[in-house]
Amino acid sequence: MTNITSHKLPAGFQTAGITCGIKQSGKPDLSIFVSERPAASAGVFTQNLVCGAPVTVSKQRVGRETSRAVVINSGNSNACTGEQGINDAETMTAKLAEGLNCDAEDVLVCSTGIIGHFLPMEKILSGVESIVSQLGGESSHLQAAAQAIMTTDTFAKMSSREVTVNGKLVRITGVCKGAAMIAPNMATMLSVIMTDVELSVEQADRLLRHAVNRSFNCVSVEGHTSTSDTVLLLANGAAETGQVEETMLGEFGAALDQVSEELAQMIIRDAEGAEHFVTIDVTGLDTHTDARKIAKAVAEGPLVKTAITGNDPNWGRIVSAAGYAGVEFDPMAVTLHLNQTLLYEQGQPVQYEEAAVSQSMQSGDVHIELKCGNGPENIRFWTCDLTQEYVRLNSEYTT
Amino acid sequence: MTNITSHKLPAGFQTAGITCGIKQSGKPDLSIFVSERPAASAGVFTQNLVCGAPVTVSKQRVGRETSRAVVINSGNSNACTGEQGINDAETMTAKLAEGLNCDAEDVLVCSTGIIGHFLPMEKILSGVESIVSQLGGESSHLQAAAQAIMTTDTFAKMSSREVTVNGKLVRITGVCKGAAMIAPNMATMLSVIMTDVELSVEQADRLLRHAVNRSFNCVSVEGHTSTSDTVLLLANGAAETGQVEETMLGEFGAALDQVSEELAQMIIRDAEGAEHFVTIDVTGLDTHTDARKIAKAVAEGPLVKTAITGNDPNWGRIVSAAGYAGVEFDPMAVTLHLNQTLLYEQGQPVQYEEAAVSQSMQSGDVHIELKCGNGPENIRFWTCDLTQEYVRLNSEYTT
Repeated sequence: MTNITSHKLPAGFQTAGITCGIKQSGKPDLSIFVSERPAASAGVFTQNLVCGAPVTVSKQRVGRETSRAVVINSGNSNACTGEQGINDAETMTAKLAEGLNCDAEDVLVCSTGIIGHFLPMEKILSGVESIVSQLGGESSHLQAAAQAIMTTDTFAKMSSREVTVNGKLVRITGVCKGAAMIAPNMATMLSVIMTDVELSVEQADRLLRHAVNRSFNCVSVEGHTSTSDTVLLLANGAAETGQVEETMLGEFGAALDQVSEELAQMIIRDAEGAEHFVTIDVTGLDTHTDARKIAKAVAEGPLVKTAITGNDPNWGRIVSAAGYAGVEFDPMAVTLHLNQTLLYEQGQPVQYEEAAVSQSMQSGDVHIELKCGNGPENIRFWTCDLTQEYVRLNSEYTT
Repeated sequence: MTNITSHKLPAGFQTAGITCGIKQSGKPDLSIFVSERPAASAGVFTQNLVCGAPVTVSKQRVGRETSRAVVINSGNSNACTGEQGINDAETMTAKLAEGLNCDAEDVLVCSTGIIGHFLPMEKILSGVESIVSQLGGESSHLQAAAQAIMTTDTFAKMSSREVTVNGKLVRITGVCKGAAMIAPNMATMLSVIMTDVELSVEQADRLLRHAVNRSFNCVSVEGHTSTSDTVLLLANGAAETGQVEETMLGEFGAALDQVSEELAQMIIRDAEGAEHFVTIDVTGLDTHTDARKIAKAVAEGPLVKTAITGNDPNWGRIVSAAGYAGVEFDPMAVTLHLNQTLLYEQGQPVQYEEAAVSQSMQSGDVHIELKCGNGPENIRFWTCDLTQEYVRLNSEYTT
């Protein structure tokens, strides 16, 4: 497997990103991701009951073998917009389908940005008309597409891998945008992952869920599940692999996991106001769900986050956050390391060099290892700290 | 029912509060609450699996008819302290029992303060010895006891009511301390409620749970369930009511609910860094549990809190927090009022005067009314905003 830094597109894909005028800033706000041939599609969507109209539309359209494109606008999430929102999302896809000469059902759609406002459809429709003419397969086009899905992200997020499948070189290239919901009320983690391997829709779905469960579902900035979170996978077979046996998908699946993990980590690295990148390993549980609950409680605990902001190895906050996660474990079996230093062992405090641990946290990287017993299930989770800057960013907008 | 502002103790109770030297600041740190005669006791405790040693000890001792006293120290929570912590908690109660000439099993115990340090037992034992000689039934003694349980609270929290039961005047007087876990790692909401009505332990337990479910369990500063949260009720019968029939307990129960609610609200009013007091009414659910989940998700959502900090009627954050609460409801049935202004109706945004609503939030009082359907179950919940000052307070401690 090769880690690609130039982020070329897989064979048979083209992308584009332009400004169509949704954002007052004039920054890019419309992207398309197009497969030249029919592709198997899969999607994982927000579990928020209140979901954006594009989520409703795309949910109905993933899982087919004829998907051709994804259209994404930033600056307006088309969420909490009722029936008109659904119509607008469908109209966007129909317009792109016209340009690509395909069925509207073969176009997926995402929107990110302010909640509760109708899309400026005139701008979007003329934007879709012109963006098709700008499609290209080069890195510069991918960069433009990755930029046009950004809201308050400070850098475009891309990741690629190459692997050999059935003797053919296969590429996986993904883009994403940040998770944090920020002022005024931006939302949403979005990701599009393209690959030129040939997959059945069942394979695409299974591999994507596996990857998302170990990446995008393991990051949390502040625990706010947005109304529009979406991860899409398109696999178009243009690498001429032919159908791939399950047993031959191991390396490809690992590469897809890596692309997803790399993208998810970039979201945390770019979380607004964040000063620390935090990796949480929770081990020794009976079930993966239990491990996830504990990791999430620790990751999202404001008192854990603010202790990290202050470079304070405040293990009491970590252990007690685990305690309220709603998981049964033996408190006397809990052992905690922070940046490789033992702070708490078998339910008892231990002597350690507080100043040295605090010093190690000043690097900006914090590694929490929380062992809760001797069960077989583990999870790795990523989060960031909670800073005054985060509060400023999220509170200073006033209507 | 009469709302008492002088906060006299119920008949047959005495309290005291002193400095025994746990806190480096020299502020009061040891309190006792004593019934002159055996009292029925009830307790509601933290659901955190990682609980303080005093919680373990007191849990085993509530629910008897012979309880005599509660001893509380602040400055050290005796949590995450293993077997020695249990021994220390028991030793504290044995010392007070000696002074009161009762069984150690009839003394309850709470501790609040730093996690993971052993109690300074010498100071505590000599403190317990001297505090018994200072017992008194006057308001000044109650004030001293309420002060000595404080950690970073800025004011002593007391509430009283008088009601007539079986023709006798009955008093309920409670104290509590704040909920927010703050720098360096203070914890814990504690409350002791005393009454001179006669209750069976079953009645005491049922009435206390009812009151706590509508008060202390309906407030959240940042969602961190502490290791030591405890609410205790002592009912000693000194008002000579004799046994009270269930049907005659209505007004008493309502008064107990009010005392609990008033104390719980004081915790929110005193939450560190808070600038807004937020009341959340969630209505129209099928179950109380569902209503609670939604209220909690809204109350604890950092993006909801920071919007309130900025006086921003950002309804999208409120509606989407409800959406990720894990409760099934129809998003198209959601209607939201903020400070009596309709912002969102039946799943659709409505026109409203943003500036006027923002202005109303500047008073510091915010009322969120979220209707999620036509079900019979409602909840009222209280919280505060999330400010840069909160982050500063909770992050600036460095070891």
